[in-house]
Amino acid sequence: MEKIAVIGSGLIGRAWATVFSRAGHQVKLYDAVDGTVERAIGLIEEGLVELKAAGLVSGNPKEIVKNISAASSLEDAVSNADYVQENTSEKLDVKREVFKQMDAVAPASCILASSTSTIQTSLFSEGLSGKNRCIVAHPVNPPHVVPIVEVSPASWTDESVVKRTYDLHARVGQVPIIVKKEVAGFILNRLQAALLREAWRLVGEDYVSAEDLDKTVRDGLGLRWAFMGPFETIDLNAPEGVADYAGRFGKAFSEMMSGVNYSEWNAPLISKVESQCREYLSHEKHVEREAIRDKKLMALVAHKRG
Amino acid sequence: MEKIAVIGSGLIGRAWATVFSRAGHQVKLYDAVDGTVERAIGLIEEGLVELKAAGLVSGNPKEIVKNISAASSLEDAVSNADYVQENTSEKLDVKREVFKQMDAVAPASCILASSTSTIQTSLFSEGLSGKNRCIVAHPVNPPHVVPIVEVSPASWTDESVVKRTYDLHARVGQVPIIVKKEVAGFILNRLQAALLREAWRLVGEDYVSAEDLDKTVRDGLGLRWAFMGPFETIDLNAPEGVADYAGRFGKAFSEMMSGVNYSEWNAPLISKVESQCREYLSHEKHVEREAIRDKKLMALVAHKRG
Repeated sequence: MEKIAVIGSGLIGRAWATVFSRAGHQVKLYDAVDGTVERAIGLIEEGLVELKAAGLVSGNPKEIVKNISAASSLEDAVSNADYVQENTSEKLDVKREVFKQMDAVAPASCILASSTSTIQTSLFSEGLSGKNRCIVAHPVNPPHVVPIVEVSPASWTDESVVKRTYDLHARVGQVPIIVKKEVAGFILNRLQAALLREAWRLVGEDYVSAEDLDKTVRDGLGLRWAFMGPFETIDLNAPEGVADYAGRFGKAFSEMMSGVNYSEWNAPLISKVESQCREYLSHEKHVEREAIRDKKLMALVAHKRG
Repeated sequence: MEKIAVIGSGLIGRAWATVFSRAGHQVKLYDAVDGTVERAIGLIEEGLVELKAAGLVSGNPKEIVKNISAASSLEDAVSNADYVQENTSEKLDVKREVFKQMDAVAPASCILASSTSTIQTSLFSEGLSGKNRCIVAHPVNPPHVVPIVEVSPASWTDESVVKRTYDLHARVGQVPIIVKKEVAGFILNRLQAALLREAWRLVGEDYVSAEDLDKTVRDGLGLRWAFMGPFETIDLNAPEGVADYAGRFGKAFSEMMSGVNYSEWNAPLISKVESQCREYLSHEKHVEREAIRDKKLMALVAHKRG
């Protein structure tokens, strides 16, 4: 079993330590800020207890958390690792420096993966002697609940590194996908952006309220998408499948969206959406609502497994 | 309780008869083709048994189906109705003729609603003396499982008709929303089209396979959207809410999507997506997969209610 190093003990780092330790891997957790890792391991154990209650952990949280140990330095974390999952801040100069340091001390066969959602592999790995073992493995928060992982190599990343990263994530219970060429936002955030900009425009131009638009997804569009993707959905919405669907509805869909122009979300639009959201989404209960969301996510993922 | 007429006994008509009868309304079901209504009522009863098994019906299917009676003519169906849900074919001339006939025989206070997904209220009601009582109430298939209903009036539809339609659908357990101004595709299909055209482009330009894109939604993006809409999702993805989110990510989202051009789905692209879909979505099992989807949809909706 691969030995894992998780760099950074914030929300995402802790979630990754949870994912790998839950699957039985030895995890070394490192954070540049002194004393945070010990606290992080405590939080991970609490999280494992919640996951257990939701049916998303079969083992004993007390035993699982023993798979995680605090690393005393970056070198201590990665020098024996087979796979590193990096979760430092979303700044190119920070990533470049951390990857440079890791590349200097990690074993030659060790994969260096980043959780970044905005920085392409080619940018943080360029110029490193080990650039061919660098890759992005982008999770959706929180990865110990939401399984998707976008595996996005640079053009110079070794095929074997792509495959080993993919296989590792599949084995620990995630759902990896391959982003075949670098593209801003990878796949998930591009799809989200495409839907969001239409959503903002529809509210901005007074076709619908923000609350009604949310209902349209939550009680309509999102129900199928929780267990089948958009292609599978339309494949079943025409008797002969997706090509049949395209023949029937492609022209209408194209015409429906033609001539639409999107502008950046400006101050008046932001203020309009913000005030409409405040009518049904309490700002005071933001933290409580986050906890409810996480419980619902866990319950939904457990439901899908059942 | 409003007396309901359902016109057309195909898939959508039967689903609407199920929705209204399940909520205790008397339903007159009419179909222009002789003998189909009796068969439809049998199918509705079978469907109610399935819904009962899924936990989506509390009453006894045998009793519920007694709320539905076969109408012998369009006049018989609507002459005593408070609300009509029309489900004839998606052709403007057919809709215009059916609405003209219904407008001539329905009581003055009766609402005339269409399930159409493509024809605006103004088009099928224009010129009718009762045009102010005409409206679209667009469901997602199947409406006895998926609750969203897009209520889309023409500019001349009475406010009271909008309100009564909204209230009726809310009372029978659907989730109605108001489309404030007529717009092609209403809200749901516009959001779907926005995401779909990016999905087709990403596969067409070889960034990702169709199967991996489906996973990205099914095991990522779609999980939150099954119980909270896109605004609620981003409202919780920034500490200070949706305006904070727009400030942090708006520019990046806008840049990410800038310069993207969409073309109509042409033959080579359709054939590419079709062949990729056939790798993981069996054409031979299309009907079986539809049944699995419907079971999963019912289970998900039951889960959300629990």
